[in-house]
Amino acid sequence: GPSEEYENLRRRIYSNTKEIWYYINHEIGKLIADEVKADSLQAILNQVADRKRSLLSDQEKLPELDGYKEWRETEAANVSELVQRRLKHLQNPPDCRDARKVICNLNKGCGFGCQLHHIVYCLIFAYATERTLILNSKGWRYNSKGWDYVFHPISDSCTTSYDDKVMPWPVSYDAKVVSLPFIDSISQKPKFLPLAIPKDLAHRIVRFNGDPASWWIGQMLKYILKPRTTMQKAINETIANMNFKSPIVGVHIRRTDKVGTEAAFHHIHEYMTHVKDYYDQLELTRPVDTRRVYLASDDANVLEDARKKYPEYEFIGDASIAKTAATHRRYTPLSLAGLLVDLHMLSTCDYIVCTFSSQVGRVAYEIMQTNRVDASQSFFSLDDIYYFGGQNAHDRRALMPHTANAKDEISFQVGDLIGVAGNHWNGFGRGTNKRTNLNGLIPWYKTADHLVLYPFPEYKQVPLYSDTRQKG
Amino acid sequence: GPSEEYENLRRRIYSNTKEIWYYINHEIGKLIADEVKADSLQAILNQVADRKRSLLSDQEKLPELDGYKEWRETEAANVSELVQRRLKHLQNPPDCRDARKVICNLNKGCGFGCQLHHIVYCLIFAYATERTLILNSKGWRYNSKGWDYVFHPISDSCTTSYDDKVMPWPVSYDAKVVSLPFIDSISQKPKFLPLAIPKDLAHRIVRFNGDPASWWIGQMLKYILKPRTTMQKAINETIANMNFKSPIVGVHIRRTDKVGTEAAFHHIHEYMTHVKDYYDQLELTRPVDTRRVYLASDDANVLEDARKKYPEYEFIGDASIAKTAATHRRYTPLSLAGLLVDLHMLSTCDYIVCTFSSQVGRVAYEIMQTNRVDASQSFFSLDDIYYFGGQNAHDRRALMPHTANAKDEISFQVGDLIGVAGNHWNGFGRGTNKRTNLNGLIPWYKTADHLVLYPFPEYKQVPLYSDTRQKG
Ligand SMILES: Nc1nc2c(ncn2[C@@H]2O[C@H](COP(=O)(O)OP(=O)(O)O)[C@@H](O)[C@H]2O)c(=O)[nH]1
Ligand SMILES: Nc1nc2c(ncn2[C@@H]2O[C@H](COP(=O)(O)OP(=O)(O)O)[C@@H](O)[C@H]2O)c(=O)[nH]1
Repeated sequence: GPSEEYENLRRRIYSNTKEIWYYINHEIGKLIADEVKADSLQAILNQVADRKRSLLSDQEKLPELDGYKEWRETEAANVSELVQRRLKHLQNPPDCRDARKVICNLNKGCGFGCQLHHIVYCLIFAYATERTLILNSKGWRYNSKGWDYVFHPISDSCTTSYDDKVMPWPVSYDAKVVSLPFIDSISQKPKFLPLAIPKDLAHRIVRFNGDPASWWIGQMLKYILKPRTTMQKAINETIANMNFKSPIVGVHIRRTDKVGTEAAFHHIHEYMTHVKDYYDQLELTRPVDTRRVYLASDDANVLEDARKKYPEYEFIGDASIAKTAATHRRYTPLSLAGLLVDLHMLSTCDYIVCTFSSQVGRVAYEIMQTNRVDASQSFFSLDDIYYFGGQNAHDRRALMPHTANAKDEISFQVGDLIGVAGNHWNGFGRGTNKRTNLNGLIPWYKTADHLVLYPFPEYKQVPLYSDTRQKG
Repeated sequence: GPSEEYENLRRRIYSNTKEIWYYINHEIGKLIADEVKADSLQAILNQVADRKRSLLSDQEKLPELDGYKEWRETEAANVSELVQRRLKHLQNPPDCRDARKVICNLNKGCGFGCQLHHIVYCLIFAYATERTLILNSKGWRYNSKGWDYVFHPISDSCTTSYDDKVMPWPVSYDAKVVSLPFIDSISQKPKFLPLAIPKDLAHRIVRFNGDPASWWIGQMLKYILKPRTTMQKAINETIANMNFKSPIVGVHIRRTDKVGTEAAFHHIHEYMTHVKDYYDQLELTRPVDTRRVYLASDDANVLEDARKKYPEYEFIGDASIAKTAATHRRYTPLSLAGLLVDLHMLSTCDYIVCTFSSQVGRVAYEIMQTNRVDASQSFFSLDDIYYFGGQNAHDRRALMPHTANAKDEISFQVGDLIGVAGNHWNGFGRGTNKRTNLNGLIPWYKTADHLVLYPFPEYKQVPLYSDTRQKG
């Protein structure tokens, strides 16, 4: 297989080609707005956009042609299966009564994406401390009958802590049963929480995936999120009635309660710019007869509005699903079923345009990461970069030195860690240099994501390869 | 080893990254000249230049890291040795008297580069027709004692056509001995002349070299250009007195008789812009204590001028060599020795900045191609793209369709062959679409070099691998 260095380099080139574009697009865009020779500047911008698409399109062919495609697929399947085997092992201790446990309450008063991430956090805690996770979902807001009524239980054999004493985290001694607070209010926050990944797997994951942290979180979701037969059938039927065919771009437009509180409003055309760019690039390598978009939203008006404004696109989506997502109907079994359809569809699309400020968008991406070898370049978020709510510091490492050129920029040296707040999609992001403590703009291309490797338990009892699949 | 498709793609990405830069640099440069917000445009341009260097620097690491580096080196050596063995076989027939021959006269009234290319043309003719090449160099203008007084003869055993009848090309029957005209005036121009390459080797060469045509010509030079011991000693001594150390950029500035007749004048700063860019990019990956330049010219004033204007660079070069290259002293043994030093040095540099309108620049590049696995990205020519004087049509193939956007552009469809005249280094080149017969500007990045494969003889008598070296 390819070396880690090579894979990192390949991805860096790809994303820095995008960075060049973000930069030029933004800067020349400003000059156009000022009406300084707007015509000739716009012509330049169009040209550069074409050239960028051609370059990215070529770069997407690199991993198809470098002789490692099959290796990556095998390795991705192997590592995923290993994680799933370990989780199954953890969740099904030989003697449940004896097993150490961690308790997770699904009574978090938030949406389904937020709740899924809550379980992910608990499961990572369980994996890190070798405790079996017990999920309490009595009186769950999406289905009062509980999680297990909709999904397969997260353990086949061990779902109660009996009457053992439950100690709330943080514990001063190695209690047998620990219960977890919400991640937002955890004290003594463990270093193994996202975006950390297991050290023993990290160097394998990096060789096939460009965003190991979300891949790792996706693996947790893969273990957790298994609809029961009745629910799965209902989902399948809804999907069967949709004309879902590749190529297709998934668009998630989060509105209602989110807008103005936790996120800014984004107009439909902001999403569609990226959809158009996706198809323009795709058309360089194949004819596209229909530009299909799967549109998910919690606002039922969006679909109609999109169809009216963009008649040249075919919008797939179910307005009745969006209707059940309205705030007053949201916490119902029907609304959950609709959301599961949306999540499934979004994560099956070739590309997602969304706002990562919404957990729905992030969950769709995380699931996407489990559906293919590497989905790390298969989305565009209009606002935040990828994150996990309550995560430990997310840093980027400086690969090149930088001297601040403007008063809002900060300087850094090679190797500096920079805690990042976000990418402005204009060639710059904002961050705090941990060496100098200065906060300001940083040229994104001079930095690379800093992976945090944590020495999780290695589950040596679990075989590294399944019987049928051998090392690639 | 890597597939041909992969290698082509890799190179295409690299050169199209340069094309983006050429385009933006030119267009924004024009707006700066118009003094439209010159300050902010210049700042954008500087930023993009930085970002481009970072991308190219990363891309140069790709072939170091993709796992095929050693394979490429072995394969390049194997194919080169095969060509050399075949030439040796051709030039040393078992029975010289019996052998079919082609005669080449070194009385072409031009410079050494031009004469070398004349011999290359004759040797390719010999290789294509399986005739032993006989070189007549009596009264040679660089050394009246003849070629063999300076260089090893091009055959160890067969250097005369005896008194066989010599038939000038074109011949109506398969004459035993054929003599060749200058390529410029050849009638019935054979299809095997440059830039054609041998079909039986093409798919091997393409997998390690980005410019097979110049590689092939370089192989001819490698066979031809072997200084005798006395000359080699003299060259070595001159070189030993120079502080030649990597990193170093070779600059060839052709002046005197060339300027205004066959080429335009280029100011020193035009060359130095590219030298600076080379070092700025290099410094992204390693510290550069001294920016060294090997400067060759036929004008002795250039070296002094450069040292005065660019004190931050260390110029290596020998003004006395340039003095002997003055037109009135040029055709002398001393001048030839100096030129051999210059050619050796230029071709040993890490990068060459020159004008390909000069055969000296092209010869230096061709030799460079024999010194390393792939030198196809190791030069910048201020004027012409690479060519061979008297070559057959040089086409580019359209990889993407293009619709003319301006009145001086031409349209093309995927697969169209476009005879190219040159690249304007602004993202566009000029050419003639062979399907439509229209001539105009073409966006370079939508096209790729069209290799001409010719079924040269395959020399099955010559072993494919030498004894000591096995297939990689
Ligand atoms: N069916 C459906 N429901 C949505 C959509 N967007 C939001 N919702 C509902 O709104 C909730 C939002 O809460 P959450 O998942 O925590 O995401 P966030 O609030 O956007 O970060 C979801 O769980 C859904 O119940 C959508 O596109 N489709
Ligand atoms: N030593 C030396 N001689 C040069 C240089 N440039 C040109 N000359 C001389 O000028 C001749 C130019 O003729 P030619 O090689 O055909 O190249 P062209 O005229 O530049 O295409 C060379 O062969 C040299 O004799 C140079 O940089 N160094």
